[in-house]
Amino acid sequence: MMKPAIVLLSGGLDSATCLALARSQGFAAYCLSFNYGQRHNAELKAAARVAQALGASEHRVVDLGLAQFGGSALTDAAIAVPTGGVQPGIPVTYVPARNTIMLSLALAWAEVLKSSDIFVGVNAVDYSGYPDCRPEYIAAFETMANLATKAGVEGHRLHIHAPLIALSKAEIIRTGAALGVDYGLTVSCYQADDEGRACGVCDACRLRAEGFAAAGLSDPTPYRT
Amino acid sequence: MMKPAIVLLSGGLDSATCLALARSQGFAAYCLSFNYGQRHNAELKAAARVAQALGASEHRVVDLGLAQFGGSALTDAAIAVPTGGVQPGIPVTYVPARNTIMLSLALAWAEVLKSSDIFVGVNAVDYSGYPDCRPEYIAAFETMANLATKAGVEGHRLHIHAPLIALSKAEIIRTGAALGVDYGLTVSCYQADDEGRACGVCDACRLRAEGFAAAGLSDPTPYRT
Repeated sequence: MMKPAIVLLSGGLDSATCLALARSQGFAAYCLSFNYGQRHNAELKAAARVAQALGASEHRVVDLGLAQFGGSALTDAAIAVPTGGVQPGIPVTYVPARNTIMLSLALAWAEVLKSSDIFVGVNAVDYSGYPDCRPEYIAAFETMANLATKAGVEGHRLHIHAPLIALSKAEIIRTGAALGVDYGLTVSCYQADDEGRACGVCDACRLRAEGFAAAGLSDPTPYRT
Repeated sequence: MMKPAIVLLSGGLDSATCLALARSQGFAAYCLSFNYGQRHNAELKAAARVAQALGASEHRVVDLGLAQFGGSALTDAAIAVPTGGVQPGIPVTYVPARNTIMLSLALAWAEVLKSSDIFVGVNAVDYSGYPDCRPEYIAAFETMANLATKAGVEGHRLHIHAPLIALSKAEIIRTGAALGVDYGLTVSCYQADDEGRACGVCDACRLRAEGFAAAGLSDPTPYRT
């Protein structure tokens, strides 16, 4: 029987690659997505397509009232998504504590499924300045998670897998392409329309396009014109 | 101006005392409660009463779909709440990763409010075997939180205050009574009815009754007969 793993799946390029890696390592994938009032809701449709295409055992979407806290261009309509190019520092698209909240809910599901493995597609190289995409953050979360749960008390260790953390966007794309990921199913744009068509000018679109160019592969992203 | 602090407020005895302590230390209290499919929904009404009585600046309730993961007598109607007395080990009333999820959402709100202080009423002495009530867990969460957020990047430290962690239930009750907490507003029972009347036989009821007895104070809890 395959070991179960929780895979955080946003519907973007990174998490799709992360899911493909978990499957290639022999895990039965229990995919978890969040409806947190993000502007780019087309991602959730993409997550469902990706989960099915990559043979996930289950895909759940948890509603999460992050928008009521505001503080991010992704959840607060009053803050515009920047389109002028990637800037240094923490961008306004940063969602406060997002990865911590999502990993915490993955931890709950892992504990119920008696799974010791959580996969998250964070990436420190092209991470656009998000503090919760750094390796030291992932390590600290793993330490905390092992103290938080029955796993820690009962002596088996829980692992947070972040297999993309040191890869460039181009390396992620090449990895996924080699594993047969259809990136045409994914949506990266921070302000995709309902059909998942990308704007081409937000940071996520720019990093994705540069990644495909650097990988020497053609980008199947549909753009609005 | 008073410094803002996030206070996790369940509506039970411990979190009410924790809120009173935060207020007594001069913090403006932003109270956070969760509707996570818990059986004892009377707690949420109690939380609103307690927040008002203790002068909270704001009280928010976040809906959280924990029940879909199951795995706890508090969120899964198929698992009975034990009433035979407190047993050693992790009880079935343990909700997987609950404190981690709640602290993570508190962290999000703290970051938006630019608050460096989160109060949580966990208690390691009478903690009934919950792994996420231990001091080493709280310390690990604080370390992780400082790496997860802008706070860590920008160099000011975020503190997780767990002022009850080493107190007995009797000491908690004496502390709160000295600060003027009206414990008649709180609900501890795992299966309180809609009017907040307690069953008297679940672990939470037993620990509460023992605490009042040990403190030499009368317990204002209304019981079903």
